[in-house]
Amino acid sequence: MNLLLLEPSEVGAEGIAVLSGARATHLRQILRAQPGQDIRVGVIDGGRGSGIIRSVDERTVTVEFELEGVVPERPPVDLLLALPRPKVMRRLWAQIAALGVGHILLSNAERVERNYFDSHVLGADVYRPLLVEGLQQARDTCMPIVSIHRRLKVLVEDDLDSLCPRGARLVAQPGSERTFSATLAACTTPDIIARQAPKASSRVLLAVGPEGGWNDFELQLMHAHGFKTVAMGRRTLRSDTALIALLALLHEAVSTSEATSGIPGR
Amino acid sequence: MNLLLLEPSEVGAEGIAVLSGARATHLRQILRAQPGQDIRVGVIDGGRGSGIIRSVDERTVTVEFELEGVVPERPPVDLLLALPRPKVMRRLWAQIAALGVGHILLSNAERVERNYFDSHVLGADVYRPLLVEGLQQARDTCMPIVSIHRRLKVLVEDDLDSLCPRGARLVAQPGSERTFSATLAACTTPDIIARQAPKASSRVLLAVGPEGGWNDFELQLMHAHGFKTVAMGRRTLRSDTALIALLALLHEAVSTSEATSGIPGR
Repeated sequence: MNLLLLEPSEVGAEGIAVLSGARATHLRQILRAQPGQDIRVGVIDGGRGSGIIRSVDERTVTVEFELEGVVPERPPVDLLLALPRPKVMRRLWAQIAALGVGHILLSNAERVERNYFDSHVLGADVYRPLLVEGLQQARDTCMPIVSIHRRLKVLVEDDLDSLCPRGARLVAQPGSERTFSATLAACTTPDIIARQAPKASSRVLLAVGPEGGWNDFELQLMHAHGFKTVAMGRRTLRSDTALIALLALLHEAVSTSEATSGIPGR
Repeated sequence: MNLLLLEPSEVGAEGIAVLSGARATHLRQILRAQPGQDIRVGVIDGGRGSGIIRSVDERTVTVEFELEGVVPERPPVDLLLALPRPKVMRRLWAQIAALGVGHILLSNAERVERNYFDSHVLGADVYRPLLVEGLQQARDTCMPIVSIHRRLKVLVEDDLDSLCPRGARLVAQPGSERTFSATLAACTTPDIIARQAPKASSRVLLAVGPEGGWNDFELQLMHAHGFKTVAMGRRTLRSDTALIALLALLHEAVSTSEATSGIPGR
């Protein structure tokens, strides 16, 4: 835990939070929190600051803290992910939050088994603590938005323009040769921005398929709605490894493209 | 399993291999191998080709196969990794092999606990099957070389020039701002190659530290032996997530630098 992340409801006007549950246990048992100890503190979707442990008892930990005014920016990357097996998805929540994603859209695809959608790993009671864990690791406060879409066609045709209205759209597919930076450069030349996204921002939506990739229909559907294909590299990776690699490459390409184009990160 | 990888000792002149153990079980139970079924086959540190399942019984699977002459190139990336916790290291073996590393050097550092070196995850009987699993995932045949170094100073001062004689050396450190492509470009300008590595190749050695990073002494030691610092990104990641991200970024930077400089990948 590189940052203790508080729910907005836990923050009183007096800058005191009393924690119970998993975070209190972690503070007591793993970090061996003692009264007087310093700790970095943040508030979900709010600012960050510094705090001090005031008291520790069997069930609670009390923290006094002060926040700075600056709220971290939402990461400029959104993710449309074909729902992986529940066991893999459980591992991914914290890693996606740590790597930095603004909006996580989980969708169906031909190669996704229907019953994955019935898994309890899609319950907010399961995934929210995992997202908090990832944010605490990365010292971020910006909670990803999560939405679940049982029909890819409906998502792409009807809902995507309002959910992710602006910015570049990329779809990762095995076998493609084009790198993120090349594809992103093509997306962000002024005339393409003008055609594709009238109120352009530098947000990027990345679609990552199931094991075995998107099928032809799914690719055509996405191409018809502004997605450009990007390479997944020459090697076939396990889906969780591949997703981490893709998000790392995309963040690097976005920050390089910001640096060269002067477009800010949100 | 995207490729069935055979030990050289299993390959007879007649192109028949009889498998038992874990791979036979995987073929029978997970892939439901049946006589007549096609399968991609490779030989460790050898070629790849196609095969056909000839028979399946309770303990063995017999495969007949033919290899092509071309042996995959050793990945142009080597990894000097401060030994992580055994539980993390166990997860990493297959992922490192899948991402593609030529030589894995595991070393000590101030922030590595000494007893990690006594773990059975450093036994070849444990890690070799995990490396095979990763290679099978990535359809590679090139088994990483593994070496274990209990003293970082001895490794860097005395052994590294013979173990990794040529190419660029990078050290990843939190807080640095310089990207892989920028650092690599600086390493491969002709006069720096001439000074630093008389018989330059485009191999790259990447040093990745423990949780909390290398200490000042370790960084100075590496800088004195030709390492340039590269950024780990703005976010603090879990060490396994960070390693996957770094290897993905490095592979991308190496292949881009090959494409622009014309230096081949080995």
